[in-house]
Amino acid sequence: MPKAIPTPELISRLLAGDRLALSRAISLVEDRTAEGRELLSGLFAHTGQAHLIGITGAPGTGKSTLVTGLVQSYRAAGQRVAVLAVDPTSPFTGGALLGDRVRMSRLSGDPGVFIRSMATRGNLGGLAAATADVAHLLDAAGYERILIETVGVGQAEVEIAATAHTTVVVEAPGLGDEVQAIKAGVLEIADIFVVNKADRPGVERTVGALELMLHMAEGAPRQLLHHGQLLDVAAPAQSQAAGWQVRVFRTVAASGAGIPEVVAEIERHAAWLDASGERGSREALRLTHAVEQIVQAELLRRLRAALPAHRLSALMAEVAARSLDPYTAAQQILSGLA
Amino acid sequence: MPKAIPTPELISRLLAGDRLALSRAISLVEDRTAEGRELLSGLFAHTGQAHLIGITGAPGTGKSTLVTGLVQSYRAAGQRVAVLAVDPTSPFTGGALLGDRVRMSRLSGDPGVFIRSMATRGNLGGLAAATADVAHLLDAAGYERILIETVGVGQAEVEIAATAHTTVVVEAPGLGDEVQAIKAGVLEIADIFVVNKADRPGVERTVGALELMLHMAEGAPRQLLHHGQLLDVAAPAQSQAAGWQVRVFRTVAASGAGIPEVVAEIERHAAWLDASGERGSREALRLTHAVEQIVQAELLRRLRAALPAHRLSALMAEVAARSLDPYTAAQQILSGLA
Repeated sequence: MPKAIPTPELISRLLAGDRLALSRAISLVEDRTAEGRELLSGLFAHTGQAHLIGITGAPGTGKSTLVTGLVQSYRAAGQRVAVLAVDPTSPFTGGALLGDRVRMSRLSGDPGVFIRSMATRGNLGGLAAATADVAHLLDAAGYERILIETVGVGQAEVEIAATAHTTVVVEAPGLGDEVQAIKAGVLEIADIFVVNKADRPGVERTVGALELMLHMAEGAPRQLLHHGQLLDVAAPAQSQAAGWQVRVFRTVAASGAGIPEVVAEIERHAAWLDASGERGSREALRLTHAVEQIVQAELLRRLRAALPAHRLSALMAEVAARSLDPYTAAQQILSGLA
Repeated sequence: MPKAIPTPELISRLLAGDRLALSRAISLVEDRTAEGRELLSGLFAHTGQAHLIGITGAPGTGKSTLVTGLVQSYRAAGQRVAVLAVDPTSPFTGGALLGDRVRMSRLSGDPGVFIRSMATRGNLGGLAAATADVAHLLDAAGYERILIETVGVGQAEVEIAATAHTTVVVEAPGLGDEVQAIKAGVLEIADIFVVNKADRPGVERTVGALELMLHMAEGAPRQLLHHGQLLDVAAPAQSQAAGWQVRVFRTVAASGAGIPEVVAEIERHAAWLDASGERGSREALRLTHAVEQIVQAELLRRLRAALPAHRLSALMAEVAARSLDPYTAAQQILSGLA
């Protein structure tokens, strides 16, 4: 059991770049403790400096290797980088191939790099909230680039990536390109496409399919994701910004080929966000989303406290049997909140 | 201003098949009046007989003409049919082509057919709730087949279709097939694909693309949609049912070609739902979703009453300026609920 550190001390140590304080703060935030919330309240004024980069893709696209390459490239340029792995299949999180382990252990000895994997227990809504919170801590701790790695299989995971400033979608040849794209709805969130493992057969077909998709979608207004139902300020935030053209890049992350071009594109996108005023819309959306997640989580907590799962199941069984109507059921659920 | 009819009288008249009573009841429900909720509570025990059929597709696929054809086919078989158009581009809702108007006016003179379009004002969450409620009224009023027509452009509209028992996704040649499919995530919700306007060039390519998609997705477990965050009973309801094979049909709805085959497939799917026990899972999911929508709508109403939009915007502006942190903002929002 680590000794409790008073919150003000933890805050000042974190702001000073103390890695141990940062780790401790992340745990408190992940565990959704009152102390964690206090920390976030105290640190929030120090955020807003980092550029958040979402990296999403199906398992097998080699995105962890790509993330490693991006980190090395940023380090070579002297920037402090954090990696947040929200992907249970990522070697950052669990079992890694030997090559990845070697590459990563080199990273983890570097004081300018901070790597953390998010526990994927619990529901994804909660995970999205925790990810945003941890990103705030890393931002306050002075990491200039924060890479958020998610596995692009479900809408919720994709949304985590989409709360970043720049979203990179990773594909690979021969994984059934069209279906993958369909599943994740990636067209709506990608600022940059990367076809990794570009030394493999089928790369032309994958690049071609993506470019065709982009071409067909041209002119259609892109819409930032905001599926929340409780708050709807700042909701639409349609990218009026016809100014950004999504492009497809090729990399062989294992050898480093193509990585500098991807980093350059991310930085070009960051500059464009500032120049176009788009960063402001994305920030507003991201923060509204964060607040909404907190509100939802708290409402869920209250509902669960008032109505345990077995009583909720019993209630729904009555509805299915038509002995209770949905309105009366909803009223009974809500009565616990009053 | 129609004279108020006491709720018990409205209920018994609706159950007896009085169309005027049904129309009045729908208006009360759409307007979210207390009387509408009372009606639903009183009528819910009489629901559960109808088979709900979602018909979704992009504008231009001719799905309204297809819906008209399906209605005629069901009528020829002696069944009572209702159409619920949630699609603002549908001729059932607004401006129609002359041919459609003629076909539809023939329908509307038939006492065994009831057509209603849903107002698409307000947010889609509310619309989904209202659609489910109106479907309950039509079910109680004895319509055996209820066709819910939605335009397949956004996730929310698609979800409305997905709350049906059988979902038919309509495509047409030459509309940029892959991109359409991607946009709607239709693979996850389609029980039946229909390629309409099958007399047009490019039909082979569209059918081929769909069949390829289906082939590639084979074996992957289909997952019924349930994106709710507040309730999560009965949530997964994965179609263990490897038993249903999604097939692609061709129609020329304007001439009626292919319509009987689609009706037969819908009925085959309905029978399969019963035989496989899958109907129970879909019903549980649909009703949980309905209850959740009501809970969400009520929470939203309470939040808005406690915190008007301009105060919410002001709050979020403070968060964007980093002078207020998300947790404190969420607390202020929630304090209105206590």
